[in-house]
Amino acid sequence: MALQARSNMAQRRAFSSAQTSKRVSVTKVRATAIEAENYVKQAPTTLVRPGIDTEDSMRARFEKVIRNAQDSICNAISEIDGKPFHQDAWTRPGGGGGISRVLQDGNVWEKAGVNVSVVYGTMPPEAYRAATGNAEKLKNKGDAGRVPFFAAGISSVMHPRNPHCPTMHFNYRYFETEEWNGIPGQWWFGGGTDITPSYVVPEDMKHFHGTYKAVCDRHDPAYYEKFKNWCDEYFLIKHRGERRGLGGIFFDDLNDRNPEDILKFSTDAVNHVVEAYCPIVKKHMNDPYTPQEKEWQQIRRGRYVEFNLVYDRGTTFGLKTGGRIESILMSMPQTASWLYDHQPKAGSPEAELLDACRNPRTWV
Amino acid sequence: MALQARSNMAQRRAFSSAQTSKRVSVTKVRATAIEAENYVKQAPTTLVRPGIDTEDSMRARFEKVIRNAQDSICNAISEIDGKPFHQDAWTRPGGGGGISRVLQDGNVWEKAGVNVSVVYGTMPPEAYRAATGNAEKLKNKGDAGRVPFFAAGISSVMHPRNPHCPTMHFNYRYFETEEWNGIPGQWWFGGGTDITPSYVVPEDMKHFHGTYKAVCDRHDPAYYEKFKNWCDEYFLIKHRGERRGLGGIFFDDLNDRNPEDILKFSTDAVNHVVEAYCPIVKKHMNDPYTPQEKEWQQIRRGRYVEFNLVYDRGTTFGLKTGGRIESILMSMPQTASWLYDHQPKAGSPEAELLDACRNPRTWV
Repeated sequence: MALQARSNMAQRRAFSSAQTSKRVSVTKVRATAIEAENYVKQAPTTLVRPGIDTEDSMRARFEKVIRNAQDSICNAISEIDGKPFHQDAWTRPGGGGGISRVLQDGNVWEKAGVNVSVVYGTMPPEAYRAATGNAEKLKNKGDAGRVPFFAAGISSVMHPRNPHCPTMHFNYRYFETEEWNGIPGQWWFGGGTDITPSYVVPEDMKHFHGTYKAVCDRHDPAYYEKFKNWCDEYFLIKHRGERRGLGGIFFDDLNDRNPEDILKFSTDAVNHVVEAYCPIVKKHMNDPYTPQEKEWQQIRRGRYVEFNLVYDRGTTFGLKTGGRIESILMSMPQTASWLYDHQPKAGSPEAELLDACRNPRTWV
Repeated sequence: MALQARSNMAQRRAFSSAQTSKRVSVTKVRATAIEAENYVKQAPTTLVRPGIDTEDSMRARFEKVIRNAQDSICNAISEIDGKPFHQDAWTRPGGGGGISRVLQDGNVWEKAGVNVSVVYGTMPPEAYRAATGNAEKLKNKGDAGRVPFFAAGISSVMHPRNPHCPTMHFNYRYFETEEWNGIPGQWWFGGGTDITPSYVVPEDMKHFHGTYKAVCDRHDPAYYEKFKNWCDEYFLIKHRGERRGLGGIFFDDLNDRNPEDILKFSTDAVNHVVEAYCPIVKKHMNDPYTPQEKEWQQIRRGRYVEFNLVYDRGTTFGLKTGGRIESILMSMPQTASWLYDHQPKAGSPEAELLDACRNPRTWV
């Protein structure tokens, strides 16, 4: 596999200057004063391996993309909310580390988190199988030895207060493995952005899906339909026969073309989170709402919890392999509710949402 | 296996008279008027198989035990709360059915549910393996054919409003399989009662555990210690290294003696739920509490959700095999909360609870 360097001088300069500043090794750094700029001083300037992940490697460049995205998305959210993010930086004993940013008890968001992590080392074969959506190629390869790997990703969930503002989730990741049991080294990208409103507002969904359709179309005219359907499939709460929300895009194991092209696509996608999501929040953040509407939002958050704890690959895998609990469960809503056998009235806006979760629609 | 009849004339008379009354076959009956007596008229008089599960069979007698317990426990809870239970009766297409009773939005309890189910038919071998805690004996028996089974059980979770009142859970079940792939028919009992307070009140725990120690001691002096430890082991939230609560008793695959003796023990245990739990609720239901104490209760409920959705054998099995969702998830609290990286202050009552969940204590 050839990971070609992209000649982005500005990016290189920024990266290079970051390299020379003091490298902070933290087990767990907690910002004592929560100020917009504070965390930047406390986070390590780079999470990749010095001397191995050279600045023109896909690994270092992907880190750059997700760290920049973490900055710009947190800034945009913070500006709307009026409250800053709190940051934890952490390192992983086996190699690598991460930066978790959380805005809790905000004015607009009950809880919003944006995590970046870069981890590497070796993993057991069952972890390899769980990490890839394409476990087929690993069949009959035995369980001998550990698999050398590198993984970098950004993930985020944002739960607003107002039931007319949707929850949004995104995750973009890059994975590499080295030769193991006769399987040559692999690389792939995965990710997606999806939206979970409590009420259907068709023009909002048109805006959200439309933004991602435009992103997709710039890279491959087949992407949007493929990744939209994949998203509807992935976020199915099987035991209820309904999706947790109204979708977006989702892809995994993407390595069918030049990695440079997929990096460009992933970069474009993560860089359009704010444009896809924030206008919808701004539009509804001051909408009046009833206690019944708030209750419905809480019930939908219960569904969100069900999906994440029972089905989500990253969450269940993380919980069972000793990942950092607080980062993994940052996706949980601050509050959720379960009412026995709750059934929305036929023809109600709540029934409309449920119908859209059961029967995925075409929005653009 | 010989399931010997117990000569309980009073019970037989009651059972016999129930048999002659109209058998109601319901797919889903919802009580329209919620009145204390209403549901008795709508529930099937018996859930076991007419002509097969004769009134002196363990199957019919176990149903009697759990139906009586459902009545008496719901009555006791209802009397304290001031609100009646709502009932759903349901049948299972493959055979059997159940009766769900839920008290929601009560004065004392946010949500209290007591389910009875009696199901039978055939199940796939992987379900057999999941149903028994002793999957060892099923090893290398292949996956051919379906396993004829009968299962009856009562299960309950009660979540009070006041953070000084503990949540309580109990479950008692009886299982039979018929000959399958050379394994002779099996039978076993399982169950337990456990308590989940948000704050440690040693004398309350002494009362709760003491009640169950007395029950255990009446049947086998080794039971309490064995089943108390089993409970502490079972309710471990592995990814957090803490238990969901302060334990009680738990047992599974119990078939090491005359089934009559285990029936007596199970009956004694389910019949002491009210005595073990209700005095603690009555003592604290009017305790004043702060918003911070309520918040802590909500965080503990988040842990309850994590345990149930990620680890609980009955819940995960039920969700993945198409059980009745509303009955399975009746165990969910009405409200739960997740705060990012919440750590109680050292020396606080919240830290004390966490310590007791991490390091199980001896209460009696």
